[in-house]
Amino acid sequence: MALSCEVVAVGTELLLGQIVDTNSAWIGDRLAAAGIDSHFQTKVGDNQARIEEALRVALARSDAVICCGGLGPTQDDITREAIAAVMGVALERDEAMVDAVADVFAQRGREMAANNAKQADRPVGATFIPQTRGTAPGLICPVGAKVVYAVPGVPHEMEDMLERAVVPDLVRRSGETAVIRSRVLRTWGLAESTLAEIVAPRFDRLEGVAGAPTIAFLASGMAGIKVRITVKAADASAADAALDAEEKELRALLGDVVFGTDDDSMESVVGSLLVDAGLTLGVAESLTGGLIGSRLTEVAGASRWFRGAVVSYASDVKHAVLDVPDGPVVSAAAAAAMASGAARVLGASVGLGVTGVAGPTEQDGMPVGTVFCAVDVDGTPVVSELHFPGDRERVRWYSTITVLDLLRKTLLARG
Amino acid sequence: MALSCEVVAVGTELLLGQIVDTNSAWIGDRLAAAGIDSHFQTKVGDNQARIEEALRVALARSDAVICCGGLGPTQDDITREAIAAVMGVALERDEAMVDAVADVFAQRGREMAANNAKQADRPVGATFIPQTRGTAPGLICPVGAKVVYAVPGVPHEMEDMLERAVVPDLVRRSGETAVIRSRVLRTWGLAESTLAEIVAPRFDRLEGVAGAPTIAFLASGMAGIKVRITVKAADASAADAALDAEEKELRALLGDVVFGTDDDSMESVVGSLLVDAGLTLGVAESLTGGLIGSRLTEVAGASRWFRGAVVSYASDVKHAVLDVPDGPVVSAAAAAAMASGAARVLGASVGLGVTGVAGPTEQDGMPVGTVFCAVDVDGTPVVSELHFPGDRERVRWYSTITVLDLLRKTLLARG
Repeated sequence: MALSCEVVAVGTELLLGQIVDTNSAWIGDRLAAAGIDSHFQTKVGDNQARIEEALRVALARSDAVICCGGLGPTQDDITREAIAAVMGVALERDEAMVDAVADVFAQRGREMAANNAKQADRPVGATFIPQTRGTAPGLICPVGAKVVYAVPGVPHEMEDMLERAVVPDLVRRSGETAVIRSRVLRTWGLAESTLAEIVAPRFDRLEGVAGAPTIAFLASGMAGIKVRITVKAADASAADAALDAEEKELRALLGDVVFGTDDDSMESVVGSLLVDAGLTLGVAESLTGGLIGSRLTEVAGASRWFRGAVVSYASDVKHAVLDVPDGPVVSAAAAAAMASGAARVLGASVGLGVTGVAGPTEQDGMPVGTVFCAVDVDGTPVVSELHFPGDRERVRWYSTITVLDLLRKTLLARG
Repeated sequence: MALSCEVVAVGTELLLGQIVDTNSAWIGDRLAAAGIDSHFQTKVGDNQARIEEALRVALARSDAVICCGGLGPTQDDITREAIAAVMGVALERDEAMVDAVADVFAQRGREMAANNAKQADRPVGATFIPQTRGTAPGLICPVGAKVVYAVPGVPHEMEDMLERAVVPDLVRRSGETAVIRSRVLRTWGLAESTLAEIVAPRFDRLEGVAGAPTIAFLASGMAGIKVRITVKAADASAADAALDAEEKELRALLGDVVFGTDDDSMESVVGSLLVDAGLTLGVAESLTGGLIGSRLTEVAGASRWFRGAVVSYASDVKHAVLDVPDGPVVSAAAAAAMASGAARVLGASVGLGVTGVAGPTEQDGMPVGTVFCAVDVDGTPVVSELHFPGDRERVRWYSTITVLDLLRKTLLARG
């Protein structure tokens, strides 16, 4: 029976919808990866009685609670008080922690306002999770045989404390001594059901095998479908070896549908392939209006391989700037000329040309969602015709990632 | 004492963090605007006993519950069963609703699979909220003097049912006979604290006045800060008149910091100004890499006023394509030449040129966050120097919206 851990996110702004609570989802993902169940997640406002109520309800039905937010220095920050009340103890100020909070301010060249000392308070019997990114420390608060963790609401502070202290403590409590690691294979181009079908033989072989890796599909919209491998092993190096082995099995099945792992993005992968091949890229885009260029330049250091783009939105800009021949501009011929024109005008070794109909209405007799894409690597543009469902926004976004994927496959094939 | 209404979002994928629950935040915002309190919001998985538990906890402490998700046709969709159990009644199938669900499929040219008939089930004593956007109807389920609303988890279906049926029903239950309406003024360029200071005299005049409009600031990141006016009036036309009057008061204080209302975006407003003036736009962008073009072309019908863009990422593309003179490319002179070059090369009446340092490292001796922007309306480029804090992503996004705002102000001043 797995340990169960609820999440209580504290903040009136969350209830009012001024901020979307993304912390709970992030925590839920990490708990699942660590083999810990999370059956309920609650949002509650900055009201002590209601925070206590939420904690009591959660502790009555789960083994642990992660309480997120309300650890700052203001009057609104009352998570410590609420936890102390639930524990039935007083708050005490820790002088060493007062110094530690003051140190954080000193390192930023600022003096600590007096109210910040409050962040060094802890319920009697609780232990601190030292702060490494913000001013507020976290708390580990035993409540009978159960436990409440308090962490800041600022995402990067919360994430640090979760990974560093909370998840390891939960795993220890669960009696689990193994190391749990996961790796994500990033894919583009296949539906989740198709991916599942392709991976089915592997699923079948792993099923019921003790200690086998688990595989999960995470649909991630415009970021494609992520295939997550999770392994449990005696230590980190054994876990990494198991991940490597399973990645190899899945890649053998999925082939070039996998464009990267973990923090790779389609644009970072395209950039690396261009750098490796000693090539530079110029883009001519129309219906995407600059989206392709903007995604490519999200990659720091893109200037090593990205020359620029011509957004030829008006038809006569295609003719005048890119030498696209007269005739319909939503066509294979126009895409090919755009690719070659982009390479020539922008002084790039590779040209990418994209033209199509984003909607809301058809163009040149072509229905919304029709897209022509051309890649010109060695003076010979290769054109693909694509069709996307959906509204203007979806057509533009799907076009962008799909043409980058085509470019990736062209570069891979070129070797 | 305001009516209180909790939100219970149903779906294991929400707990696992595969999807972020944005529905609860959206509902929280709408409830607050209607004067209804929401003190707790809960996520729970597709497990009947736990959905019942979440509903019972919520009904014990609040007047109403909106239960979101789990109304589909699959085995996982068990919200109806859980509500019936909490009500202590059976489910009954409504044959008229079976026909209505089949009609939705027929309109889409598809036959209804048998399992969809389940969507016509309702707990005895509950009434349907007719579907207008999806296949599943919603439910209004009395539980003693309290009530549970069931709505689909698909955001646009949920939003439609909330606005059309749930919020009006809650307002009726609250005994409120007035009409509550709100309007958002979209702003860019000032911090929330500065906005609050400017609006302070108006706040002071409204304070304590019975029936006065309420004003709230909603920080919305790259979308700027929204100023929401909410009024309560005897009927819709009185509410609209009150909104008009208050909008006038706030605009008198805020001036051209307000760029639009409600569904306006910076790019739609720029587009309208260009169309009104009979002008077309060409853009030359560098650090933004295509973001400016991509935002402008989010607007359907942008082809009426957007000619295109040159993304001159490499310095020599600036020189070769746009005739930017030799010398540093992060400079006022380069921005001015880019604006004029964009207008000339793209055949536009207005040119916008943007060059700067997005990071992660400095360029031409200029620190990260330095941006030069030029607008060339009548052959004379006007240059602004801007400085943005933050990382690469923030510098690029802030640059984009800020230069569009400068273009807007230039067009407004030109009249």
